Formats: sequence, structure tokens, C-alpha cells
Amino acid sequence: MITEAVKAQIRNIVGPNNAIDSTIECFGYSYDSSFVPMAKENIPELVVLPSSVQEVAQVMAIANANRIPVTPRGSASGRTGGSIPAAAGISLALNRMNRIVELDERNMMITVEAGVRTIDIYQACAQKGLFFPPDPASWKYSTIGGNVGENAGGMRAVKYGVTSNYVMGLEVVLADGTVINTGGKAMKNVTGYNLTQLITGSEGTLGIITKVLLRLIPMPKTRNTMQLMFGSLANACHTIHQMLMSGLVPAAAELMDKISLQAVARHRKLDISPGIEACVVLEIDGETKADLQQQAERIADIARRLEVIEVRIAASDEEVEEIWAIRRGLSSAIGAMAPNRFGEDISVPRDAFPRAVDLIRAIGEKYQLTIAVYGHAGDGNIHPSVLCDLSKPGEEKRVQQAVDEIFAAALSVGGTLSGEHGIGLTKRAYLVNALGEAGVQTLKAIKQALDAQGILNPGKIWQ
Amino acid sequence: MITEAVKAQIRNIVGPNNAIDSTIECFGYSYDSSFVPMAKENIPELVVLPSSVQEVAQVMAIANANRIPVTPRGSASGRTGGSIPAAAGISLALNRMNRIVELDERNMMITVEAGVRTIDIYQACAQKGLFFPPDPASWKYSTIGGNVGENAGGMRAVKYGVTSNYVMGLEVVLADGTVINTGGKAMKNVTGYNLTQLITGSEGTLGIITKVLLRLIPMPKTRNTMQLMFGSLANACHTIHQMLMSGLVPAAAELMDKISLQAVARHRKLDISPGIEACVVLEIDGETKADLQQQAERIADIARRLEVIEVRIAASDEEVEEIWAIRRGLSSAIGAMAPNRFGEDISVPRDAFPRAVDLIRAIGEKYQLTIAVYGHAGDGNIHPSVLCDLSKPGEEKRVQQAVDEIFAAALSVGGTLSGEHGIGLTKRAYLVNALGEAGVQTLKAIKQALDAQGILNPGKIWQ
Repeated sequence: MITEAVKAQIRNIVGPNNAIDSTIECFGYSYDSSFVPMAKENIPELVVLPSSVQEVAQVMAIANANRIPVTPRGSASGRTGGSIPAAAGISLALNRMNRIVELDERNMMITVEAGVRTIDIYQACAQKGLFFPPDPASWKYSTIGGNVGENAGGMRAVKYGVTSNYVMGLEVVLADGTVINTGGKAMKNVTGYNLTQLITGSEGTLGIITKVLLRLIPMPKTRNTMQLMFGSLANACHTIHQMLMSGLVPAAAELMDKISLQAVARHRKLDISPGIEACVVLEIDGETKADLQQQAERIADIARRLEVIEVRIAASDEEVEEIWAIRRGLSSAIGAMAPNRFGEDISVPRDAFPRAVDLIRAIGEKYQLTIAVYGHAGDGNIHPSVLCDLSKPGEEKRVQQAVDEIFAAALSVGGTLSGEHGIGLTKRAYLVNALGEAGVQTLKAIKQALDAQGILNPGKIWQ
Repeated sequence: MITEAVKAQIRNIVGPNNAIDSTIECFGYSYDSSFVPMAKENIPELVVLPSSVQEVAQVMAIANANRIPVTPRGSASGRTGGSIPAAAGISLALNRMNRIVELDERNMMITVEAGVRTIDIYQACAQKGLFFPPDPASWKYSTIGGNVGENAGGMRAVKYGVTSNYVMGLEVVLADGTVINTGGKAMKNVTGYNLTQLITGSEGTLGIITKVLLRLIPMPKTRNTMQLMFGSLANACHTIHQMLMSGLVPAAAELMDKISLQAVARHRKLDISPGIEACVVLEIDGETKADLQQQAERIADIARRLEVIEVRIAASDEEVEEIWAIRRGLSSAIGAMAPNRFGEDISVPRDAFPRAVDLIRAIGEKYQLTIAVYGHAGDGNIHPSVLCDLSKPGEEKRVQQAVDEIFAAALSVGGTLSGEHGIGLTKRAYLVNALGEAGVQTLKAIKQALDAQGILNPGKIWQ
């Protein structure tokens, strides 16, 4: 319980309107975009909205002195419960810290506060011909603090990498309120341990990220979209694989299985030929139109050798939109297929993608569940969606067993539990299978070193 | 002191020939390629040469139980004393662990033991059309364990990044002998803290790296070399900067100042026109000869706008060799200019490169010392070489003051103490200036968490 005296101290720091304790308002900070059921114990006691690193530091000092759990939060677009206050306490919402501090064109870097939306970073850079590639599905409302905390990915990761590949430095408030700055604008830096990368992806458990220094790249001059339809999922996977092996790296390489395609077809009233088993959507980019044309032809050649049924190279912006609309509408189309849906995020070695999909299908058959599979095939990141109806007796248990087996399948092919969503609350039970007992103990030792009282986002990553 | 009983235990593990305690042989393990003066206290008491991770684990368990310092070692090609046993104890030489465990062509990854030489990795990959880009100057004899431990860079970093950008996973023996495996073959991975990147660059202070999983890229199909001569160092820097801003990323972009050029000219009996103040050597690579030609022309255009005096595009393999011979001969040519030389490694934001060079020149004038400057201008990594004669009275003190000021200059322009050599023994005194007291305390907390007794490479990174 947070005492009234402590609340008063915090209100003194952030102002009375920025420390909220009414139950109805606090309720709004108890859930995120994951499949974690809403629960009373996830409602924070106090929502705190600081406006500066100094305020965050002062709030953390008070929380630490009073052993109050603190769960950082941006737009709560996370998929694994990272921003859900698992132990009540303070929900530290960083949305007011939404300044773009500096766009350094000469060094191609941008410094932003944690609460800046991903799309705002993208747009500020694009105006100057610079490119911030990470594009998690929620990028229109997700904040960069959350993206860094969960090391968000996206469709462009196959060519451009994930959020962590762009993080050059961080301003972080530690559990006790100490502020540290990691990294910097030097491209090469081996001065001490890489705290920047340790804290990136640590899901708010090691410190509160208040500021982020990101590197940028020049905006590709031109891009185009291709759609490839295959009669076999394996051939779709092999096409992507052979492209990559030959040095052709598309900016995005998305794969949808038949169930995913059927969902979109129904939702968007499209016709999909009956023989189609898989669809690949590619974005290619480059310096010149001629360069793009050459890339597209080389890709089409590879696909033809692998029995592609249909190759479509967008000839206009409208066609680009048409093709991408299928991929973008996918998640909601799949969601509309059944009363309930559990979307997962596993990541496997690239060459294990077809094998992982086969294993997932077998799991679906075993438990009589429809599992749609789509994902970022270029980097082995698969999003299986288990479609179900939890009102049916026994369904919940079967779904749980199927999900358990999906994670086991990912690990069995040398993959891991999460490609871009993090572990959060939803995958804690599997962590030891992925990292081993010694690995988990190593994480806990680091956590203990930086947050001895365990007040930073407790209950996440491990149980 | 390591007792005879402990030595016997260790001999039982690694075999009698692989645990050496003769002073003369141990002496060979007391120095590296840095400018650290040889000293009696740096001679290990026991040199241990394990052949497997199991042996390393058993040796560490004994060292931990007996509080014996352990300093890991590969080829001792480090430049900051990383592999020098600062507190005697065990020198753990991993050179016998030199197996290429697996070259996984389909996933474009290679698994190697820590003692494999960098060049052997490069060559094994090149035979299969795959490319392992990191090329520290010592890559013909350095081992990958040391490269990872110090996060080695090289000339190709401007386009391809440094060692850490290729490390996907590690097998690490912790201080107490526990073995952990970090990362894996999944391209995207947010399962727990990023121990892979925490341990990469930690200079052997957090664990003994025994195995490394590296990602590879397809080998560029063609490459060429250019040499640009400028009448002003600033214009040379601006040329590189404008190339990068326009999206032209050379595989290497090396800059030499006039003093460096004079050293090479004298050494190799070349004529350098009197008006030349700086030389830029570029490697460009790509898919086709036409692509290269286009890149070269665009670069030449930029250079011409910045008053380049001479543009040379290699027309044959012999010309490529001729141009690179200048850059490659640089370090020894500079070394030959004076009885003593202190080579440093600072890293600054790209746009601060000209300013940093100016500051270094001013420091040279202030202390009446010749300082040659060259470096990886494409990524802001500068190697100033202070030329001196330590037999002159007062010279050593002046050199030390100059070096102190060089580091201060790097920090003053937003740079850092090391781009690719690490902190080791030689830069410990400056760490707090770079990271702040809170930053250093954070590193120490992590060290304490993973190596409570401080037996892993003690005396490194901080004092």
C-alpha cells in the first residue's frame, strides 16, 4: 500500500494532476495489448506521469525508499504484458516525456525522450531524408521507450534489423533514482560494458529508460512491392532463403499460410485460387528504379525455379497499397475468424522456418485447433495464431497445451521464445527451457545487482 | 600463491604438459601488443592451456574455490593490456581450443571455439562464398575469443560494423565454473537480457568465452580501391562525410594526415607532392563492375566539389595492392620515425573528426611532440600516434600529459576512450571521465554480481 504521505511527496514532484489514484482511472493502466486477462491485482495504486528525467529520478528514489513496485509504461501496445503492473504499485507513464530533443543530421542520429511515438520519429527523420527503419505493427502509437524496452522488431527487420540495432545510447534512471548515460554518438565504442544493449530488451526491469539516442540511415531513394503465390509453403520458404543466400536482401519478406490467406480473403472479399498454399509479400528498395527492376527480376527467377504460381510486381502506388492491405489486414482478419485468438511470437533459425511451420500444423491437428501461421519469414520470426472458443468446455486447456507445445517446438529447432514481443508475463513459465537454470540465474544476478529490492517491473521475464 | 596441491589438481584436468609454471615460459605470457611496460608482477604463476569447455569449467571451479586470479588469453595481440595478468595467478590460454565447430551455410552462421584465428574464420567462410567482415589489424594472428572480448573493429567497420555486430551467441564459463549459453541462431531474439552483448567487449572480466556463434553475410561479388589526395584535412573529412550522408557507404574509408603520409613516403621511398595534406583510401564493393564504376564516379564527384587534388581509381589488382600497401605500412612507418611511439585509439562522432584532429594537433604543438594521425574516418575512429624519445629528460611526462589531453579532447567533442581496443590496463584512469561515477558503479555492480570474488581478469577496465 502506498501511504497518503508518500502520495503527497510524489504529487509534490510531478504536480497534483500527474499523480492519479482514482480506481476508475487507475484501471485504464492495468492492461495492454497482450492476451493477459484483466485482473484486479494488475490495477496500479498510483499512476504517475512525470515530465522530466529529474522527476523520474525523484519518484524512483521515493519508490525505492518505500519499496513500492514501479512499472514503466508508454502506449501499452506490448503483446506480453510488459507494461501491466503485476504487483500494483506505481504505473510510471512516460507519455508526457515526448520531446524530440535533437535531430543531428550531420551525424545521422536523433535523441528523443522515451514517450515519443515511433511514427513521430520516423516522420521527423523522413522530412530530412533520413530513415529510422524499425516498424513494429503498433508503430503508429507505440512509444520508443517501450520499443527499446521490449526490443521491438517489425517487417523491415530482415534487411534493417530490430530496434536494438539502432540504439546508440540511453539515459536511464536506476532503481534508486541514480541517472546514468550509456553509449554516445561515437559509432565505435568499447568503453566499459555494453549497458546500452543490456538495458535494451530488459523490459523495464533494470531501469527506467528516459531518453534514447538512435542512429539513422539515409532514406532509400525508391522502393517497390512484390507478391508471390505458391502452391507449397516449403517452396515459399525456400524462395526467401535462396534470395538471402544470393545476397538479395528485401526490406521486408512476409509470409502467410493458407489459413491466414483464407482469413483475409473472407474479410476483404478477395478470391484466392484454390491451389494457393502460401503468399509472400516482399518490399524491395534501392537507389534507382533500374536497380529495383533488376532485384525484382532476380527474385522472380528464383521463385520460378521453385514453382511459383503467380508473380505480381506492383506497377503503381495503388497496387503497392493493394498488396500491403492484405498483410496489414491480417491480424484483424484472423481475429475475426473465431471468438478467441492467442497470437504468439516465436523465432527460429531461418532454415528451420518450414520445419517449424510443419510442427505447428501438427500441433493444431493434435489438439483439433485451427492455427493460422504468418510471419517475418526473412528472419525466422513466426506469429502462430491459435483460433479458439474459450466458452467450449475443455478448450482453454487444449489451447494452453498447444501453446506449450508451440514453444517447445521453437526450442526444438534451435529457436527461441520471442522474436520481438519479449517475455513479459505471458512466457515466464518457458524461460528456463530456453535459457537453462544457469542462464536464468545469471539474469537474476544482474537484476539483483541493479535493483536489489526488486521494485522495477516485478513479476516479469521470470516467475 | 598457487599451491602445489592446486597445481596438481589443475594438471589432472588439462594434462601435465598444459599447465606450465616455469618462470621462463610464464614470462612469455606476461605481455601483449600494448605499450604497457613489461613488469615482474605481470608474470603469471601458472599458464593453463585447456582443450575443452569442460576443462575450462573445472579449472575455473578450482580457481574460484582458491581465489586465484584468471586472465584469459588468445594471441595477446591486444593493444590495451587485456590479456596481461595484472595480478599474476593463472594465464588461461585458449589457443588449443581452435576448432571450427560448424559452418552452417544455410543459416549463414559459423560456430567456432575461442582460440580460432580470425583469418581462419574469414577463409573458411570465403571458400563457401560467405563473408565474415571484421578485420582488426591483427586479424592474421588474433583469435576470435580476444576479438569478442575486446569487441575488435577494423577497417571494414564503416560499412559492416565491428565484431559485436556479428556475435549471435556465446558459450561462456562463469567465474565459478558454471557454463552458460547465450543467444542462438534465431535472428530475432528477445528472450531475457542480452548477455551476448553484455559479455562481448567485457574484456574477460565477466566470464571466459569458450565458443562463439557468428553470423555471416554473402561475400560481395566485386570490390575496388580508390585513393584521394587533398590539400586540406578538413576537405578530406568532409568528402567522407558527404559520401555517407548521400547513402554511399564504402567498405573502408581510411584517412591519413600529412605526418602519416610523410612517414610512409620516407619508409617506402615514395614521392608525395608538397601540397598534399591528407590522403583517403577507400574500398568500395558491390554486385557488379558497373555498380562499382558508378559508386566510384559519384565519390569522385563529391571529392571534386571539395577540391580534391588527385583521384586514383585502381585499374588493376596491382594498383589495388599499391594503394593499400601505403595504408598497411603505416603503423610500422610511423614507428620507425622516432625511438618511441604511443599509439592511441579514440572514437568521436563522425562530424567531430576534423575538430578532434585539430585538437590533437594543438596538443602536439603545446607539448612540442610530433603526433601522427590516421584512422577509420568513416566511423570516427582515430589512431593518434605520439612520437617521442623517452630517453630525453622530461619527455615521458610530456607524453603522458599529451595523452591525457588527447582523451580529454575525445570526450570534449562527444567521443569516447576507445573505438576498438578496449580499456584494459592503459585507459583505466580515464574511465570515470567517460562514464561518470554512477556509470562506473553500475559496471562494478554487474561485475560483482557475476564474479563476487573478483578473480576474472582483475585490474582491468577500472582501477
